Parts: sequence; structure tokens; C-alpha cells
Amino acid sequence: MRPVVSLALISLLLANPALADALVDNIDGMTLDERGEVVRFTGILIAPDGKVVKLLKRGDKRPEKLDWREDLKGRTVIPGMVDAHGHVMDLGFRAMALDLSATTSLAQAQDAIRRYAAENSQRPWLVGGGWNQEVWALGRFPTAAELDAATGEKPAWFVRADGHAGWANSAAMRIAGITATTKSPAGGRIELAAGKPGGVFVDAAMALIEKSLPKPTPRDRNAAFIKAQDILLSQGVTASADMGTTLDDWMTYRRMGDLGILRMRIMSYSAGVEVALQVGGSGPTPWLYADKLRMGGIKLYLDGALGSRGAWLKAPYADAPGNSGQGNTGLPFLTDAQLLNSIARGAMDNFQIAMHAIGDRANKQALDAIDEVSDTYNGDRRWRIEHAQIVDPIDLPRFGKHGIIASMQPVHQTSDAKMAEARLGSARLGGAYAWKSMLGNKARLVFGSDYPVESPNPFAGWAVAFTRQDAQGQPFGGWRPEEAVSREQAWRAFTIDAAFAGFGEKQFGHLAPGMRADFVVVDRDPLLVSPAELRTTVVFETWVGGERVFRRGQGAAQGR
Amino acid sequence: MRPVVSLALISLLLANPALADALVDNIDGMTLDERGEVVRFTGILIAPDGKVVKLLKRGDKRPEKLDWREDLKGRTVIPGMVDAHGHVMDLGFRAMALDLSATTSLAQAQDAIRRYAAENSQRPWLVGGGWNQEVWALGRFPTAAELDAATGEKPAWFVRADGHAGWANSAAMRIAGITATTKSPAGGRIELAAGKPGGVFVDAAMALIEKSLPKPTPRDRNAAFIKAQDILLSQGVTASADMGTTLDDWMTYRRMGDLGILRMRIMSYSAGVEVALQVGGSGPTPWLYADKLRMGGIKLYLDGALGSRGAWLKAPYADAPGNSGQGNTGLPFLTDAQLLNSIARGAMDNFQIAMHAIGDRANKQALDAIDEVSDTYNGDRRWRIEHAQIVDPIDLPRFGKHGIIASMQPVHQTSDAKMAEARLGSARLGGAYAWKSMLGNKARLVFGSDYPVESPNPFAGWAVAFTRQDAQGQPFGGWRPEEAVSREQAWRAFTIDAAFAGFGEKQFGHLAPGMRADFVVVDRDPLLVSPAELRTTVVFETWVGGERVFRRGQGAAQGR
Repeated sequence: MRPVVSLALISLLLANPALADALVDNIDGMTLDERGEVVRFTGILIAPDGKVVKLLKRGDKRPEKLDWREDLKGRTVIPGMVDAHGHVMDLGFRAMALDLSATTSLAQAQDAIRRYAAENSQRPWLVGGGWNQEVWALGRFPTAAELDAATGEKPAWFVRADGHAGWANSAAMRIAGITATTKSPAGGRIELAAGKPGGVFVDAAMALIEKSLPKPTPRDRNAAFIKAQDILLSQGVTASADMGTTLDDWMTYRRMGDLGILRMRIMSYSAGVEVALQVGGSGPTPWLYADKLRMGGIKLYLDGALGSRGAWLKAPYADAPGNSGQGNTGLPFLTDAQLLNSIARGAMDNFQIAMHAIGDRANKQALDAIDEVSDTYNGDRRWRIEHAQIVDPIDLPRFGKHGIIASMQPVHQTSDAKMAEARLGSARLGGAYAWKSMLGNKARLVFGSDYPVESPNPFAGWAVAFTRQDAQGQPFGGWRPEEAVSREQAWRAFTIDAAFAGFGEKQFGHLAPGMRADFVVVDRDPLLVSPAELRTTVVFETWVGGERVFRRGQGAAQGR
Repeated sequence: MRPVVSLALISLLLANPALADALVDNIDGMTLDERGEVVRFTGILIAPDGKVVKLLKRGDKRPEKLDWREDLKGRTVIPGMVDAHGHVMDLGFRAMALDLSATTSLAQAQDAIRRYAAENSQRPWLVGGGWNQEVWALGRFPTAAELDAATGEKPAWFVRADGHAGWANSAAMRIAGITATTKSPAGGRIELAAGKPGGVFVDAAMALIEKSLPKPTPRDRNAAFIKAQDILLSQGVTASADMGTTLDDWMTYRRMGDLGILRMRIMSYSAGVEVALQVGGSGPTPWLYADKLRMGGIKLYLDGALGSRGAWLKAPYADAPGNSGQGNTGLPFLTDAQLLNSIARGAMDNFQIAMHAIGDRANKQALDAIDEVSDTYNGDRRWRIEHAQIVDPIDLPRFGKHGIIASMQPVHQTSDAKMAEARLGSARLGGAYAWKSMLGNKARLVFGSDYPVESPNPFAGWAVAFTRQDAQGQPFGGWRPEEAVSREQAWRAFTIDAAFAGFGEKQFGHLAPGMRADFVVVDRDPLLVSPAELRTTVVFETWVGGERVFRRGQGAAQGR
């Protein structure tokens, strides 16, 4: 008798759950394709490895054999948002510390600190951040005595919203050994009050206090990471550049990856050259944990920030003429030789270089350096300039050379506009937050939030990008609206191009066969709603690699 | 018409190479089973994940559908050997540096150094190790001037065979800032010659010179790791404890794992508590890279070594009465309080504790500490005492409590016998290298080599374990032969129990269904040959996780 094989046996073989695809169906889906064209779809077929098999249109036949099927009841689905510039661990630590960013006066901040001190009496130090004396309309920095009034004898340290200055109380300064004769270090400044250290420490001077802070334990770091990841996933951010990964940060990401707790994707840029070499050895790491982590580059700081007048300008600050009569132009962090040396050390091992440059002089230094090295270190380098906030208009065309990436943060524009006018005067803002000009000059424009300096909410940044208006719709018509970009271009800069900037464009940033199935279920169509509506988009669910990692009302959750 | 499905289609489905098993066949295979009984087999069926599906006997039917099949032509196959105590990176660095271990006189060493200096004129320092003034029959330590005679003005640093002392020349001491007034640090000793630092630095004093050595780059570390792995695999060692993993070592193992270059298995014990916390955070890492790497424990040093009189003894060294007339008993590295604190910090996070203890006083300190903490940190702790070389006979029964593991190195016994007699006098050797007594007291006995202090060749250690004789078969009848163990017990200590000591017994150490297919193809039957023949066993091939990673004559090779 001839052997007879039944279809049932075949089905049994084919139905092995580990081999079947899964389907997320009944969605109003939209993505950009590789060329930046909008593609609409109604289902996503997902392979067991978490990659997209196929985007299905309304009429397409659904497979019958599926590992599982999820009906999203017609909801809007977009690709996971990608933040091209954030600080993952800082976001977590800040979320665990006191957040002063909502305070609008010094008195409010003092009240908040008083409450926090009462509720956290077991903590050895009171720490937090988010204050901004500009928002407080204080017209000067706050003082140690004003902090003492809220804290008493417990040491306290609060970092400014931009991360470029910190406010210590008297106990903290005493513990740190700060006296009337302590000098400002290179690259930093101790603010004086009545000729003595007044409580605020700018840029490199922050370390004078921070060296005395209790060091977080690995357990603290784990907790901070999980907090940050929860926040990002709940906002629809599935991938982020981490701009300035320390060795301790990296060890945290690895612990999370090893334990299966790493659910988002991190494009890591090491804090300086040494960490990159220690981690990668002879070059970037591979993508680890199914494309969730890679150290691909090195973050270098060329200057400070505008708020604390640490940004390095070509001409003096308009609102701080300086002590010597020569004018205060802010601080360069590195000499040209130091910068070129750091770039060479990283680039010779194929690490990508990302340079923080805020002031026009710092941007010129970055552009000069790229001009200098790009013949030697050729190929696909993707030189990045982070922030590129204040650029001399004569330097703008230089962003179009050598494949430079302008990595910018739309919300900074609305937060900084008034301050920038004060710091520079309106005549010197021709190349400020100049997104459209970057595109016009053929730079690759990518967007991020610079969280926790700003909220990581990508929909806020997206709305700003094509309006140049803040959350209140101000100013009418937008601030220097000629530098707005289109809604679609902004979307691209927050997805496909942000992934490209981190060498992740083959893995994520848009939905297409072979890409990781990273997507967000939202309550409205971001391509159609008004800017105000876009800004308040509600994220229902976030999926990474075909797994639901966040569901509103349930916090971050693992698995489907 | 009824659909007809052909057998060919079924075959096609089943023949998917990613799903079929593989067969290593025609072997004279032997392994211990979980209970320590010898099992013989002629084929190993291996799953695509590198685990053993089944051991096949001569008459067993072979599967017809196979991904691949390897005919080993009747050769002997044993499980991969496991070294319970080694230093992976040190092995690699030593292999890249000048090896003086074959020199039998100071003059020979000087010649070797002279040649090495000539051949390596581009190196900033001359470094190496392996010297032993006992082997040289020098009767004293060598001097800086004697090293200068071979090196001239180039700085030089050569570590003693036991790793517990180093020999510097005048240039090295000058660069390190050593002067006539430099004092010995706590836990270390600067050997004097004519009242001045003579060139040899013992234990903690070694750091006075080593701080000035050029730090290896990550590339150097990669190269050293690959060298060490090649050596170990070529000797049939497929898994090893790494006793004292620094953060740089760990980063190297991760780089290798990430790049797919890690082919051996490493049971990592961190160098002190801080590294373990930085790596594992709140406890041991999981097994990483398909069971190739895990940081599970913490290595603590309680004393130095016997050769340099750094081992901590209950009574003074017989051959060094000491300066003060009170006798020299060697050096404790930690106070009891420090030791208990370190143990508690590790054990509270479930890290395993491995304590280096060579002298009888240090072994007592380790046993006292385990007695003290084992009620608090209970459960499956596997407390390890490394070396346990000189134990006071009254302390031997204490090794049978609390599940203590005695992690010992057979070859040390033959290397040290004469020296131990000189250091202690024969009356105090009743608990020296007391393997059989450890078993008799129900301690878990595991074996290693302490490479690079000794050769990593496990067959040499295996032969010593049941003979107490050196490579020349000396002394006749064995040194204190009552402490020899059986051939099978020694095999167990070098495989299944060495894996158990590193929490790897579910993954490797013997061949059985579900275990990783780690095995070695050798040229003789180690259970039948004479001790001299066992010692010279030739490893033809080494397989890890079902992949051939070494083949004699081809160096280390990837894949089948």
C-alpha cells in the first residue's frame, strides 16, 4: 500500500506556533516609505522575529494560519516615533527627583522644595531640576540663601532646565568645600553674589558640587532606566538617541538587555572617546538584543547653552557685555586641536561623531573641523551637529557639505525665542533655529526633544516644527515662520531620518517588509488634525518588535 | 479530486536545515553522568541550538534526516574539560609577553630578556613573567641591577611565576618614582638590597610599579583574549572560571560575545565587589551568548602566595624568622571585619563568594567567615575557597560544612612540594594539598590549573591528581600519596564538579541530553592510559556547542 499523508499532518507541521506570522488588523495605518511618500494600510503582518512581513491594504487577503491576531478596531496606527537627541538616564533620574519645571516663580519653587523635603526626609540630599530663572522672571540667578530658606541644613542641588547650571544651598557648598576663594574652573563659572560664590554653578563648575553628591547604585540606575523607558514608550517614542552615554549608563542598558527588560531601542553616543573605546574596542558595537541597543558614536561638547550664557558666540552676548570691556562671548569647551584629536581618535575606528554646538562660533568650529577631517575619514560618516541653534547665516550653506546631519529640537525654539532675542538681539537671529534653511541647503534635518531638558512628547515637537508656535499658539503666525518645515517633512525628521542619523534606518523608523514592527496606536490622524490637536495626541498603545510594550491605563506592560 | 500530497513535500518541510539535528558519529565516546558513573557511546546527536539531543550506542539506529554528519573515524571523545580556576586575560597577556617560565637560571633569563629586547625595540616597556628564583636555585630574589644588565635603559617589569611579586629594573623604578625612602604599602613589601629597594616588589607593592605601565588598549585586550581562548581550546578546555574579572576584562568578553568571537565558556568571578555590582547590578547576570558567559560571583583575596612568603600562616615561616624576632607569618589582606563586609555586600545580592586562601591562617579566616555568615545567607550558596593549599589538619573537617567547595590545583602540588617543605617544615604539611582528605570530609573538590601560573593543560593536572608525581614521575610513589584521589574522581573534579562550582552544571561539564555539546577529540583513552601517557594526551579537535572551534594543525577555527 502506498503511504497516505493527510492534509491534517501538513497542517500540523505548518501550524507550529513558533513559525506562524501574526496579524495586527483593522487599523487606519500610515507610514512613510523609504522615499518619504505616505503609504496607507489596514493591517500589519508580523513575523515571529518581530519584523514586518507585509503591510496589508483593505482588499488584501488575510492569511488563515496565524500565531495570533489583534483587532485594533479601526484605530490610527503610525510608526514608532524616533527621538534623535535625548538623555535616557537623565530622564529617569529627573523623574525620580523633584521637578521644578512647572514653577513660574521663585516662591513657587521654594514651596515645592519645602514639600519635597518634608516628604523625603530619609534622603541624604535633596536633588532635582527643571528651574529656569527666565520663566520665573527673576532677572538674575537665584541664590544659596534663597534655597536655604526652603531646605534648612539638608544639602540640596537643583539643576537648571537646560542642564548647564546648578543651584546649591549653603550646606551643599560647605560639604563640597566651596569657599569665598574657590576659583571658577576652565570651561565653567561660579556665579558670584556680593563677591562670594552665590549658589549657582555654570557648566564645568557644576562638577565642584556634583562630585559630592551620593553616587547612584546600580539598583538606582536600573530603577531610573525603567522609569525613563516607561515615560518614552507612553509618549509613543520607540527609539531614541542617547546623547552622552557614560560607562555606568551603558552597563545599565546591558543589564536591562540581558534581563529582557530593555523594550525600547537606544542609539547610544558615548560621553567622550574613552567610553566608546572601552565599550566597542575597535569600532561601533553590532546592534544588540534584536536591534535594541548599539553604541555607534561619540558625543562631544563644543560649548554650553544659551540660557546660562555658556553658548560660544562669534560676537559678545547683547545682554552681558562682560567684565573686561571686551564682551562675554561664552565658553569654548575644546581647542581646535583638542577637538580634531578627539574626532580623529573616534573616526579612525569608525565611530560616528556628534558635536553639541549651540552658539554660532561653536557651530563654525564644528563645521571647520568637519571640513578638516572629512577627506581623511571618508565614506558614510554621517557627521552630526547637535542643536545647531544659532548659526551665522554665512555658515548655513556649509551644512550641505560632507553629508552633515543637523540634529535639532523644535520645542527649544519656542522655549528659547524670547531669551535668544535678549541674548543676541534680533539682528543676529538670521540663522537661529533655521530648519527650513537647513533643508534648503541640503543638510539632513533630524528632530528630537533633548529630553529631559524638554518633554519627550514628540507630538509637541512635531506641531512646533510646522507652526513655530508654542502650546498657547503664540506668537500669532509663528516666530520667524519662514523657517517652519512641512508637516510631512517634520514627520520624516522624527522617524525615518532620525533613524538614519543613528544608522538605524534598516531596522526602524518606518514600516515596511523587513523592518522591525515598531508602531504606536493613537486617538487621531496626525496628518489631518490641527496643530493644537496634534500636540495633545493620546497614545493608546506602543508596540516594539511586534510586542505591545505600553497600553494606556495599564502602564508599561510586557507582551501582547 | 482529492488533494494529493507527496512524501517529497513532507521531506522538503522536514529537511529544513535550520530544523534538523546533526550527528557526530563513529566515536569512542565516554562521559560521566550526573551521578558520576562512566557512560560510553559511539555517536552524539546535536540539535540546531548546540545541545545534545541524545548519546547513541553502537546498535542505536541513526536518524536519516540530518543537517550534517561528521565521521570521526573511531577516535576517542570526552566532554570538554572545565578549569575551575584560571585567569583568562592574564593567560593572553602573558602569551604575548616574554615567558621566562622555562628558564632554569638567572643567566638564562637574562639572555632571553636580551633577545626579546632586541626583537621588540619598538615597545615602550619590556614586560613578561614566569620567573621563579626557586627554580633558578638563586637562594634570593634577583635585583634591579641584574635586570639592567639585560635591558639597559628601557624600563622593564617581569612578574614572578605565581603572580605575587614583580621584578623591576632601574629605569622602571625611576619612572615609577621609587626612591631609597619609598615605604612598603599595607599588604605588600618592597624587597631591599643593601638597605634600598632592590628591584622586587611583593603583593600590594607591585602596584607601585604597575601604575606606570602603559595601559593596554581595548584592541590589545581583544588580541590577548583571542590568544588565551586559542590556547585553552587547543588544550581541550571548553569552559573556565575566570578568577578576578576586572571591568576591562568584562568589557572585553562582551565585545567578543557581541561579535561572535567568544567560543569558550567563562564563569566570571569579579575582582572585588564593585565590579560585580557594576556588571550585575542586583545579582549575577544570566547566562549570556548561549551559555558562554556569566558573572556569578566575586573573587576575594585573603592572602598572597607561598613562594613570595605572602601566604598567611598560623605560625612563622620556617625559612624566614622575621625581622622583629616574632617571626614572619605572611600577610592578611583583609581584616575579619573587612572580609565579612565584602561577603555580605556580595551575598546579599546572591553573588557567589570565592576566597583565595593559601596559608593555614587564611584558610581558617575563610572558614570562620563562612561559619559566621552562612545562617544569614542560606540556600544554595556554594561558598568557594580557592587553592586551600596549606590547611591546619584541625580545620580540614570544617570544609565539609555549609556545602563548601575546595577549588584546588593539582599541578601546584608538584611545583610547590619542595618549597612548601622549606617554608613550613615537613611537620606542618599534614593538611597540605590534601585532596583526598577534602573528599573524606565531604567537601566538594574541584580542580583547575591556575593558568597562567601553571600551564592550562588539564591532562597534566589530571595525571598529578592520582599520582602526586611530576612530569618526570618524581618522587617515586608520589609526594604524600595518601592525598591522591582516583582517576575517575579527578576527572569529575575537572568536568562535572568544576561546572557545578560555577553554577554551570545544567549547561556543561558532561554529555547528556539537554547539555551543550562541548567535547574534545583526543588521541588516546584517558581512562586507560598510564599517567605519563595521560599527561601527553594530544587534542585533535575541540567542539563547543556543537561547533568545531579548534582542529590541530589549523589553529582555532570557526564552524564545522
